[in-house]
Amino acid sequence: MPDDTVTPEIAVDLALIESRIRDVPDFPHEGILFKDITPLLAHREAFAAAVDGMSAPFRAEGVDHVVGLEARGFIFGAPIAMALGAGFVPARKAGKLPAKTIDRSYDLEYGTATVEIHADAIAPGARVLIVDDVLATGGTGRAAVELVRKAGGTVVGFSVLMELAALRGREMLPDVEPHILLSV
Amino acid sequence: MPDDTVTPEIAVDLALIESRIRDVPDFPHEGILFKDITPLLAHREAFAAAVDGMSAPFRAEGVDHVVGLEARGFIFGAPIAMALGAGFVPARKAGKLPAKTIDRSYDLEYGTATVEIHADAIAPGARVLIVDDVLATGGTGRAAVELVRKAGGTVVGFSVLMELAALRGREMLPDVEPHILLSV
Repeated sequence: MPDDTVTPEIAVDLALIESRIRDVPDFPHEGILFKDITPLLAHREAFAAAVDGMSAPFRAEGVDHVVGLEARGFIFGAPIAMALGAGFVPARKAGKLPAKTIDRSYDLEYGTATVEIHADAIAPGARVLIVDDVLATGGTGRAAVELVRKAGGTVVGFSVLMELAALRGREMLPDVEPHILLSV
Repeated sequence: MPDDTVTPEIAVDLALIESRIRDVPDFPHEGILFKDITPLLAHREAFAAAVDGMSAPFRAEGVDHVVGLEARGFIFGAPIAMALGAGFVPARKAGKLPAKTIDRSYDLEYGTATVEIHADAIAPGARVLIVDDVLATGGTGRAAVELVRKAGGTVVGFSVLMELAALRGREMLPDVEPHILLSV
């Protein structure tokens, strides 16, 4: 893991966090080694350490809203919103939000997907932290950043538990330096 | 709203919570009045009050795990797990969890759905609180209770923000008295 993945002043037990992520072979497809975070979530100290490490750099940033990306981004985004005294805004897959939405589509390996937020969810000028569990290809993250900006919000950060470095998702994020606890 | 929906000693601002739930007509189908909780989530005091009210009765219950039901149950379940010093276990729709699972199917208006947890997520004897946003027909809740028991866990409670009382979901829950903040 590179030394620069965590802001130095953040004291968080990365070894504990990393020890609770397990490799599951051949999911969702044969040949893929899936990084399963559910043992981390189930371990209260590890989960609390992850939430602490993911939110710490943004404590002085005056975050108004945390946008969590469906579905695992909800699990980190909601407690991070609590920790920062911010409101929570779900970014959902197409068709899940009931009121008027704005949306962005992005490319998948096969086909495209769409992410939506409510059109009135982000007030112009609001300071927004985007949260997800994993930064992979960066498609969802990029779409979320663009959506928040389209709504008039200011993206103050993009916080994820883990990046899959080989997929180079950082390069997809437009003018946002992600905050990443673990690089695998 | 009936007087008995909240345990008397819990001081939580129900009027604030209720004021941030909006009605969206004709979602997901024409003729359905959808109760949209996203304005509540976006309002930090209201969201914090909801998490507080949903977790308070279980503070002395020695909860080991909070099971949150995909997807909106994740948004409440994760901060409730934090508040109770418990681990978080996601109960997901079929095919989303990477390792070995146990599952239950339940009836929908048209067809069936399946809820899954990892087979090793709940240790035998673990004390488990199940969390969702809304108790509607009770099908998902019942399946979750049965899953936790099948895994050997003890269900210490079922906590939801809101029940849609006309759908009589309480009657579907097997030997669990739900804790409900709002009845609509």
